[in-house]
Amino acid sequence: MVDGHLIDNDLHLARFARSLGELDIPLPLALENVREMQIELARRNQMTDGTIYLQVSRGVAERNFLPEADMAPTFVAFTQPKKLYDTPAQQNGIAVALVEDPRWNRRDIKTVMLLGQALAKQDAKAQGFADVWLHEDGAITEGASSTAFILTHDDKIVTRQNSHAILPGCTRRAVMTLAESANLTIEERPITIAEAQSAAEAFLTSASSLVTPVVRIGDAVIGDGKPGPVTRRLQEIYLAAARACEKII
Amino acid sequence: MVDGHLIDNDLHLARFARSLGELDIPLPLALENVREMQIELARRNQMTDGTIYLQVSRGVAERNFLPEADMAPTFVAFTQPKKLYDTPAQQNGIAVALVEDPRWNRRDIKTVMLLGQALAKQDAKAQGFADVWLHEDGAITEGASSTAFILTHDDKIVTRQNSHAILPGCTRRAVMTLAESANLTIEERPITIAEAQSAAEAFLTSASSLVTPVVRIGDAVIGDGKPGPVTRRLQEIYLAAARACEKII
Repeated sequence: MVDGHLIDNDLHLARFARSLGELDIPLPLALENVREMQIELARRNQMTDGTIYLQVSRGVAERNFLPEADMAPTFVAFTQPKKLYDTPAQQNGIAVALVEDPRWNRRDIKTVMLLGQALAKQDAKAQGFADVWLHEDGAITEGASSTAFILTHDDKIVTRQNSHAILPGCTRRAVMTLAESANLTIEERPITIAEAQSAAEAFLTSASSLVTPVVRIGDAVIGDGKPGPVTRRLQEIYLAAARACEKII
Repeated sequence: MVDGHLIDNDLHLARFARSLGELDIPLPLALENVREMQIELARRNQMTDGTIYLQVSRGVAERNFLPEADMAPTFVAFTQPKKLYDTPAQQNGIAVALVEDPRWNRRDIKTVMLLGQALAKQDAKAQGFADVWLHEDGAITEGASSTAFILTHDDKIVTRQNSHAILPGCTRRAVMTLAESANLTIEERPITIAEAQSAAEAFLTSASSLVTPVVRIGDAVIGDGKPGPVTRRLQEIYLAAARACEKII
């Protein structure tokens, strides 16, 4: 949420429903009721800026890996107040470490199986990086909790195509749609490590960091080490679109 | 636990400590105090047969993937009463489905990141199998929550060597030690799918299923479809050793 506006929520709810479907977990509430609950939660917590976290588990059952017939999903939600825009990271850009992607083969499902990401991020932090870009077979998959983008020297915005290898980012989707409306060129394909490290610009997107410039990838400084003009433009366009979303508080 | 005896507990506690170490989580209690807690838990629950489950999380922190300085681990434990021996599965053997291993690259750490296993098992169950053996690059890794063993036609017991690819099974370790003491030959190496399907005998081991015969792997019947003599012998040896462990209730 930005200034009381609930951003990209239809995309988030659609992904929420899809992830549950892939795991054979029924929706705990109809999506319109989830949305009502989100609004209620933001209002009761008087949160205008921050994130609303939703988590569903299969329900209470004997611990033996298998579902039981009369199980009902357990649904937990909470708010995390945080100003999502004009952060130091967004103003100055961040450095990301390169780490081999340790995760399972269904990264398209949003789950709490996040140890790979947590360990990678923890390790990156210890080495002085703010975040991490994961890679596999020589190509970037995604960030630990974000989508990776670069701008090529011929002005193409590139991000990896959706597949089982990455989480289909909601902010990714929104930024792509906005970029296309602004007549920017987008390519969806894998980005090699070398291509990322020699890109004209780089940035990441996520629900909690919106559009954040990346100014160093591993030991390679991107451009002149400062956020580039296309990244800046996307930050502005995205923030304007966020403020055009429904204001719920 | 079998008839009040606490089985292979030093192996389980050593693996518990190692997994926490790999995740940079401090031990919530010294291992001797964990053991006291286990005994107390079994006694208070009047449990003579079943399992004692331990789970540790990093502790309470803001949800952002990174640890916080003053975090203390959260430690939960409970008992699951269940007769672990002379079960129908152990008496008759079970059929296991073959499923491509979907998991991350640090399977040697015991964690609750079990969706890959749960989905595989759920899928196998739907196809009429009792359990699943996972495979990768043409070789068996392990069961969804067990170690895979075969007996070759020249009387070698084979199981995969420990590495990041599998969880180092405590029952696996105990059974191997007992088999060696009984002058059986053990080889630690990968088992191809074809080799598994044409084995003389097959079985799996785990803390909750002890030694369980496998009489079908995918569509291949093992031997004459009944538990073989070496598997039977290992079941007896293991159960005798279990009953020689300390009786705590």
